Amino acid sequence: MGFDFAQIDGILNARSIAIVGASNNPLKFGGMLTASQLAMGFAGPVYLVNPNEEEILGHKAYPDLLSLPEPPDLVYIVIPADRSLEVLEQCGQRGVKGVVMIPAGFREAGEEGAALEQEVLRLAGEGGFRIIGPNCFGIYNPRNRLTLLPGYDFSTSPGDVAFLSQSGGLSSHVARLGQSLGIHFSAIVSYGNGVDIDAADLLRYFARDPQTGVIGAYLEGVRNGRAFLDALKEAASQKPVVLWKVGKAASSQQAVMSHTGSLAGSVEIWEAAFRQTRVIQASGIDEVCDVLLALRHLGWRPGRRILVSGGGGGLGTNAADLAGLAGLDIPPLNEGTDRKLTEILGRAGAVVSNPLDIGTPLLPLPMFEATMREAAANPNTDVLIFDLAMNFAMRMAGEEGLYQVADVLTRVREESGKPVVMVLYSRACDPDDLEPERVLRNMRSKLLEKGVAVFPSMRRAIRAIALVN
Amino acid sequence: MGFDFAQIDGILNARSIAIVGASNNPLKFGGMLTASQLAMGFAGPVYLVNPNEEEILGHKAYPDLLSLPEPPDLVYIVIPADRSLEVLEQCGQRGVKGVVMIPAGFREAGEEGAALEQEVLRLAGEGGFRIIGPNCFGIYNPRNRLTLLPGYDFSTSPGDVAFLSQSGGLSSHVARLGQSLGIHFSAIVSYGNGVDIDAADLLRYFARDPQTGVIGAYLEGVRNGRAFLDALKEAASQKPVVLWKVGKAASSQQAVMSHTGSLAGSVEIWEAAFRQTRVIQASGIDEVCDVLLALRHLGWRPGRRILVSGGGGGLGTNAADLAGLAGLDIPPLNEGTDRKLTEILGRAGAVVSNPLDIGTPLLPLPMFEATMREAAANPNTDVLIFDLAMNFAMRMAGEEGLYQVADVLTRVREESGKPVVMVLYSRACDPDDLEPERVLRNMRSKLLEKGVAVFPSMRRAIRAIALVN
Repeated sequence: MGFDFAQIDGILNARSIAIVGASNNPLKFGGMLTASQLAMGFAGPVYLVNPNEEEILGHKAYPDLLSLPEPPDLVYIVIPADRSLEVLEQCGQRGVKGVVMIPAGFREAGEEGAALEQEVLRLAGEGGFRIIGPNCFGIYNPRNRLTLLPGYDFSTSPGDVAFLSQSGGLSSHVARLGQSLGIHFSAIVSYGNGVDIDAADLLRYFARDPQTGVIGAYLEGVRNGRAFLDALKEAASQKPVVLWKVGKAASSQQAVMSHTGSLAGSVEIWEAAFRQTRVIQASGIDEVCDVLLALRHLGWRPGRRILVSGGGGGLGTNAADLAGLAGLDIPPLNEGTDRKLTEILGRAGAVVSNPLDIGTPLLPLPMFEATMREAAANPNTDVLIFDLAMNFAMRMAGEEGLYQVADVLTRVREESGKPVVMVLYSRACDPDDLEPERVLRNMRSKLLEKGVAVFPSMRRAIRAIALVN
Repeated sequence: MGFDFAQIDGILNARSIAIVGASNNPLKFGGMLTASQLAMGFAGPVYLVNPNEEEILGHKAYPDLLSLPEPPDLVYIVIPADRSLEVLEQCGQRGVKGVVMIPAGFREAGEEGAALEQEVLRLAGEGGFRIIGPNCFGIYNPRNRLTLLPGYDFSTSPGDVAFLSQSGGLSSHVARLGQSLGIHFSAIVSYGNGVDIDAADLLRYFARDPQTGVIGAYLEGVRNGRAFLDALKEAASQKPVVLWKVGKAASSQQAVMSHTGSLAGSVEIWEAAFRQTRVIQASGIDEVCDVLLALRHLGWRPGRRILVSGGGGGLGTNAADLAGLAGLDIPPLNEGTDRKLTEILGRAGAVVSNPLDIGTPLLPLPMFEATMREAAANPNTDVLIFDLAMNFAMRMAGEEGLYQVADVLTRVREESGKPVVMVLYSRACDPDDLEPERVLRNMRSKLLEKGVAVFPSMRRAIRAIALVN
């Protein structure tokens, strides 16, 4: 079916839902989804359908879709593949807008499943509704509080990042990790085999969705390459698209086929496609989230000239190496900055240059603030990075001292108007020593709230800055 | 000076030391080193030298080296560069074996410093002792309990990994991170500018040291390329050498010069050098430690054929992609394994193939054990990987359930005799939710103790396995 903004919008912003296969059993997908959806507090009626139950988790259960008091906007199917066809017929009879099909057992499972999938498509066409899935985890939307599997504790604060994914597990990981990192979503859609609504449709939708500012995507392959590339081009002309594409290696193409039944396409075709668009290619969930974080706090194209600072020579040398390989510049300090920093840091064992070695992990706070202020103001660099290892710093400054370090960085970020990045990590991760981790997480929260991006290593910081440039 | 095993051995295994510049001030390097060394419990006399103190941290202070009751094997100099020459003269007079020179301000600081460094070398030659540094953090040796800066809480359990580093900060990070990961060291040497004992000497030493089984090194550059490559070749013919070399990018060569005053050398020369040896090239402290972990638990060349398992299709597709790009194989399951796994996993939503999707993050324990046992026994794969995301698994199985998962993997590792790798991570890292991190660390400790390697991501696991092959 052709792209229709209103149809997809109606599904993602459904005002009533039914869960066919709702269950009291928390180990079944139907039970997980029911519990999660109820906990999430969907903003409208949630009809639970199961012919074998009177009541599910304290709510009335209906035997089938036909017995619901009203047609729901959106139906979740969480029963085995071979029993889903009759439900789809009822969806047509009731005139629902869309169906999320959770079960596997379709094209990815072989010929029989592929035939079943054709039937699904036929029933959707006849019934006049659209399908997300099958073989997927569904939709997360913090606005109407739809949640995807397992989705029991996702954030209810909406944001401007949309994410679409062929993998259900990765969708929920992105939702959960994003939440911890202060990345808020307009929606996440796990679309699995994409029998009807596919990557191209979702890219087009999010390109036009005014609440989406950045699009992320996990892709294994696409069936209609031309339509996908057109949609990608359209989306990337509107907003940054962070694309994680697997299946480039020959060895993984079989894995793609047995996972979502897609054709991965050769690495050459994909690379060429990316070159033609303004897409950011990222690989792995950590890198995807790093890029989303960098887009949020540094913006699109913050500039390639970085000033690296921290207590030690090795970290600077390593940063210079990484920056060089990533295509970032570490230019010599502006003359005025050099002079002022030399005045401030005096004979404290510091090496005033770029990278800037402050000589010790932490300085007395006023000296630290003056140093960071001058470093941020350095006219010929675009981004300031400060590197800190928790374990020793915690011993030097204590918990409150470290929060003051975070405060200095947020002030400098605010006053300078320039992006500030903190590289923050702990080298000690013994089971009986969780304190540095607790303080690190608190520092990170404080910094992220105030617009300072935080990465766990110089490598990841530099890679993220390079990717958004 | 030429290479002399006994000289370096005498320094690293010193039986008495003096700290010139010992201090009560914990913010000075001299104070840090004194406190750390006393806390570490060095196995012999520690003479504290400072003409301005009677007592330091409760121990008698001596005005100079000449007033010590005996000549120490090893002298630490922790006073500024320009005042170090007279101490070196005294070292010659007392007949010490070696000197660790902590201060910066030598060759890396410009012409004047370079001249000073020549003086240092001359005095060492005249005095008949060897020098580590200057511009370094010194020596960590768990056997005699020498510790490097800041080194206050390093492990006292010796192991078989030696590490040498031009960067002091990185030396201490490697010591601390290794300790958390169950990597134990024969010694770590931060040698800074390497005016006398340099990378070539240390490589030769550790190549011959019977207590060292693996050598790791962080290098910025070397002065005598020929001698270094000869030493590297010699060492790598004896044991694996994990080499982290920075300064390959043109932009970082200036940073190398101002850090340790070395010439980095072009990327081509280094790459060619590595091809001629059996060196493992790693980049970044995390990757270095990942490789050390892999060498410890998988050994050298465990084989390139991996079996990837976990609950989900996306993780397997991603693993297949990473493996393909890294040169590892994910071969189809052996027919017998396929049949047995199909019997065990039945209709549980699993996809029996390689990658193996067990269908849900965790299985009932006996089913999980049977599955892992068959997977490990699969005749045409060398390494078994199991992937688990903590956050959802913790909700499903609880803390004790997760420790039982770890027990299953250690049993399978033991019974099969084949390497087992766990990819273990948490997607939720909110400040107020440290429980998953605590349980994760406990699981990791249990697994590492019993020979199961643990990595925080599939990417890092696959990269480490590829690097040790």
